[in-house]
Amino acid sequence: MTETMLEMGRRVLGEQPFSVLLGVELTLFEPGKAELRVPIGRNLMQQRGFVSGGVLSYLADNAITYAAGGVLGTDVLTVEFKINFIRPALGEALIARASTVSAGRTLAVARCDLYCMNEGRETLVAAAQGTITRVERGDPK
Amino acid sequence: MTETMLEMGRRVLGEQPFSVLLGVELTLFEPGKAELRVPIGRNLMQQRGFVSGGVLSYLADNAITYAAGGVLGTDVLTVEFKINFIRPALGEALIARASTVSAGRTLAVARCDLYCMNEGRETLVAAAQGTITRVERGDPK
Amino acid sequence: MTETMLEMGRRVLGEQPFSVLLGVELTLFEPGKAELRVPIGRNLMQQRGFVSGGVLSYLADNAITYAAGGVLGTDVLTVEFKINFIRPALGEALIARASTVSAGRTLAVARCDLYCMNEGRETLVAAAQGTITRVERGDPK
Amino acid sequence: MTETMLEMGRRVLGEQPFSVLLGVELTLFEPGKAELRVPIGRNLMQQRGFVSGGVLSYLADNAITYAAGGVLGTDVLTVEFKINFIRPALGEALIARASTVSAGRTLAVARCDLYCMNEGRETLVAAAQGTITRVERGDPK
Repeated sequence: MTETMLEMGRRVLGEQPFSVLLGVELTLFEPGKAELRVPIGRNLMQQRGFVSGGVLSYLADNAITYAAGGVLGTDVLTVEFKINFIRPALGEALIARASTVSAGRTLAVARCDLYCMNEGRETLVAAAQGTITRVERGDPK
Repeated sequence: MTETMLEMGRRVLGEQPFSVLLGVELTLFEPGKAELRVPIGRNLMQQRGFVSGGVLSYLADNAITYAAGGVLGTDVLTVEFKINFIRPALGEALIARASTVSAGRTLAVARCDLYCMNEGRETLVAAAQGTITRVERGDPK
Repeated sequence: MTETMLEMGRRVLGEQPFSVLLGVELTLFEPGKAELRVPIGRNLMQQRGFVSGGVLSYLADNAITYAAGGVLGTDVLTVEFKINFIRPALGEALIARASTVSAGRTLAVARCDLYCMNEGRETLVAAAQGTITRVERGDPK
Repeated sequence: MTETMLEMGRRVLGEQPFSVLLGVELTLFEPGKAELRVPIGRNLMQQRGFVSGGVLSYLADNAITYAAGGVLGTDVLTVEFKINFIRPALGEALIARASTVSAGRTLAVARCDLYCMNEGRETLVAAAQGTITRVERGDPK
């Protein structure tokens, strides 16, 4: 029995101690698309009671890496990304939805929209765009 | 006895549950400058044994907010930032050094260089640039 | 007879000497949306015969400013933006399509996709995301 | 008699029709460093009488490409960059100073500070950071 793409993605996520620390779940993983979710607990907050920008940044970074990894191959890493924080994030959970804008042989561009789920309603809280590269074995950039 | 700028900055950091979770320390805080440090534990890693890009992003975001907050006033938030991941981060500790490039009445631009401390030697692992805004009370952007 | 939004946008574009130099045309202007086009002449190229990244950057910057200006008000300026160059741009014309991702009271986030029109076919050549702010009169940021 | 690095850089700049159109000059070119200058004429302006953000973006893009090209090799292109516009640009000339933050085998990160020269005084007007890649012949990314 072969592992599905989503199962493989979840296995890798489970091998990321920082993702495990934050309680992140991979809820969609298709070529060029990925969705990560994390329940919002007090641990993830900054001093004003909102989710830390660092959590949103982590989610955006990881989600675009997954989305591009589904196209470029599993051995990828994020070269860079930018994120706009749009409004304070609070509620029950965060959802990061990433998709590739383009993918070449070694580089991909992906975007990610980040939402708060609050009483069943999603609100956009951040938007990101970044560059992902395929890593060649024994060949660090 | 009045609180120094560094003491005030540390108090705020202590009020950020996510920063406490990561074990972050504010080691410098002057107008237009800030330095954050975090010991590298297994908790902060991704699947390859390097520090998660999310941790570097969190540090860059928080460090530029501090650096600009030291100029714009304490009530600030990061509008956006971009980060380049330069090489895998590993070692004993991460150091994020941020400084403002410019600061106007409501907006500031800051840069942050992130280093790994490994056996007493610092290596540049990431570089960031972002925009910080002053928050007006009762006046969310 | 009142000026339509598109007519107003074109009038402003005509008052931008740099846009006139490049031969740019505003082909759509609605609240939160704008499209700019420019015919590709030799003047816009770099040394390899492709469109200069500077032309793509100019188009992205101007298109997101228009898109956000249609929501925030006419007196806006771009705080910052990032652009990914995806593939070499060549053909008959460039098309920049921008739309707002969010718009608050003073800040907006917009994205722009840039295409080459080549023998009737559009190809994505760049993707941008940026931050736009409302300018208050007599109140430079 | 061999061509110096600066002479080579100027020759390439002279082969860029868009750079020639704008009247740009390469005033420094060393490994990891480049400086571009352009006299400010009415042609480069937007509707308020300031230099178009597109001109600043073009300069930042080209300057970081030069700075990284001096390290990675002459066949490079900018993958992406971000630019913060800090204050309105006006005066006699624009100066873009770029330097590499890091350079690996195929990727480099560079920053660029952009100044206006006005009555003999330089003022910072924009700050950029971007990613440059080496292009392999017959091997488009």
